[in-house]
Amino acid sequence: MSSVKWFKEPDNSSYGPVIRIDREIFSIDTGIQKLTVLENAELGRVLLLDDVVMLTEKDEFTYHEMIVHPALLAHPNPVNVLVIGGGDGGCLREIIKHKEVLNAVLCEIDPAVVEYSKKFLPFTACGFDSSRVKVHIGDGIQYVRDNPGAFDIIIVDSTDPIGIAEGLFQSPFYHGCLGALKPGGIFVQQAESPFFDFDKWLAVFTELSPAFSIVLAYGAAVPMYLSGYWTFVFASNSRDPWADFSIARASALPDLRYYSAKLQQSSFHLPVFAEQALKKITKRSKR
Amino acid sequence: MSSVKWFKEPDNSSYGPVIRIDREIFSIDTGIQKLTVLENAELGRVLLLDDVVMLTEKDEFTYHEMIVHPALLAHPNPVNVLVIGGGDGGCLREIIKHKEVLNAVLCEIDPAVVEYSKKFLPFTACGFDSSRVKVHIGDGIQYVRDNPGAFDIIIVDSTDPIGIAEGLFQSPFYHGCLGALKPGGIFVQQAESPFFDFDKWLAVFTELSPAFSIVLAYGAAVPMYLSGYWTFVFASNSRDPWADFSIARASALPDLRYYSAKLQQSSFHLPVFAEQALKKITKRSKR
Repeated sequence: MSSVKWFKEPDNSSYGPVIRIDREIFSIDTGIQKLTVLENAELGRVLLLDDVVMLTEKDEFTYHEMIVHPALLAHPNPVNVLVIGGGDGGCLREIIKHKEVLNAVLCEIDPAVVEYSKKFLPFTACGFDSSRVKVHIGDGIQYVRDNPGAFDIIIVDSTDPIGIAEGLFQSPFYHGCLGALKPGGIFVQQAESPFFDFDKWLAVFTELSPAFSIVLAYGAAVPMYLSGYWTFVFASNSRDPWADFSIARASALPDLRYYSAKLQQSSFHLPVFAEQALKKITKRSKR
Repeated sequence: MSSVKWFKEPDNSSYGPVIRIDREIFSIDTGIQKLTVLENAELGRVLLLDDVVMLTEKDEFTYHEMIVHPALLAHPNPVNVLVIGGGDGGCLREIIKHKEVLNAVLCEIDPAVVEYSKKFLPFTACGFDSSRVKVHIGDGIQYVRDNPGAFDIIIVDSTDPIGIAEGLFQSPFYHGCLGALKPGGIFVQQAESPFFDFDKWLAVFTELSPAFSIVLAYGAAVPMYLSGYWTFVFASNSRDPWADFSIARASALPDLRYYSAKLQQSSFHLPVFAEQALKKITKRSKR
């Protein structure tokens, strides 16, 4: 019994999930961050960056399906898609399920995340070999500045808004993304949870609202993230999630375990305490 | 640092939330179960029964609003409402927000839960003094047998389907509930999570389906329960959650922090892996 080791995120000091470490697979200082892969009997492989849970094999499908499909299905022809972060490949795996996508670019600041995900997380890192996928190693803030008008969809799949990802939650980056989108483009970002650190959650939407006229939150169950209820922001200057939505395209997507066409609308209905706070700062569409 | 104490549910052996015990308020063997009240800086008061988290002051509103309002708003005139379990009073607090309710009966097997909730959990135990509320101490399985045709709504707010609550998840009890409902009555029960122990989750619906022709699952974020995503079962032989739904009645409910009229439909849209499993065993309505 005394040899049992547990992992707990150091930041959540008075409450949080613990994971029994059944096997320590790998750990390295990448020069940018600490990258760790653990294994747990119930959860499978677990990826940590700087000792924060990024994903587990058991539940990553909820997060990756929900950060990708609502936006791609809201766009009538998402040919060019950019992922910022997302070096584990989970977003790419979902993006290339859409046959409309001809060019999926992953801009990841830390090449080690891509390298070791390919090695240790084959369940997410299964799309890198696609001829439609390109990997760019570099800073997402610079990349969007360098690629004006290039993308139909930008998805920001980053760590929390502290440390290396802090700039990905700030106004200059959001205006850069607006510039990198084609007309009718859509921006999506993981947006934390309203249940813990409510102010940090609300700040994502406050900071984003000046750049886009349509700023909507939607939610999903992500058991491994604090509270188990995670949100995403959907932002655009012309598209809502429903006008161009096609049930036929949604139904043609293979291997869905979380997303369904019903959630294209339902997931945008947040707990009322969160909806009321957002109403004050965003221009919500009338659905 | 060495004096910091943590609580973890003993059952979830390889994964689960931990709560820092900032203050041990109270603990007693009631003769039926162990009842413990803790305090945590982020979560407020925490109620444990047999070392399983029943509620925390921070997030109990999500569970209690969602176990009560969808069913009461699906019934055109819910006059007589029975709660089985629910000794903390959280369900009653939400039920008496509905002015249609003239008779709310709480049938709780353990009088100590009511007694100590009144003492230590005033935020849930605030409805017991209402003239519309009656508390019956006894076994819920016997109570429904003894009260045929008495209720418009029956809500089962119990512990997990092991130990003293096991019978509340079995066919004889479900047929008893059917007998205790008036024509057009609705049965609701907390129904575990599909993310962990999927078989236990599915068993709730399998066991209930022979008693009711309409058996639907709906979900809510309950951060303190394992996975953070919890489900409820809505069952009836004549009513769906929408035909008699009144936005006016929903809007008249005071002090809602989770439930909104939008969730009357949205919360019934489950992750697709759960929907697909349920389709095989329940007769879902076409919404």
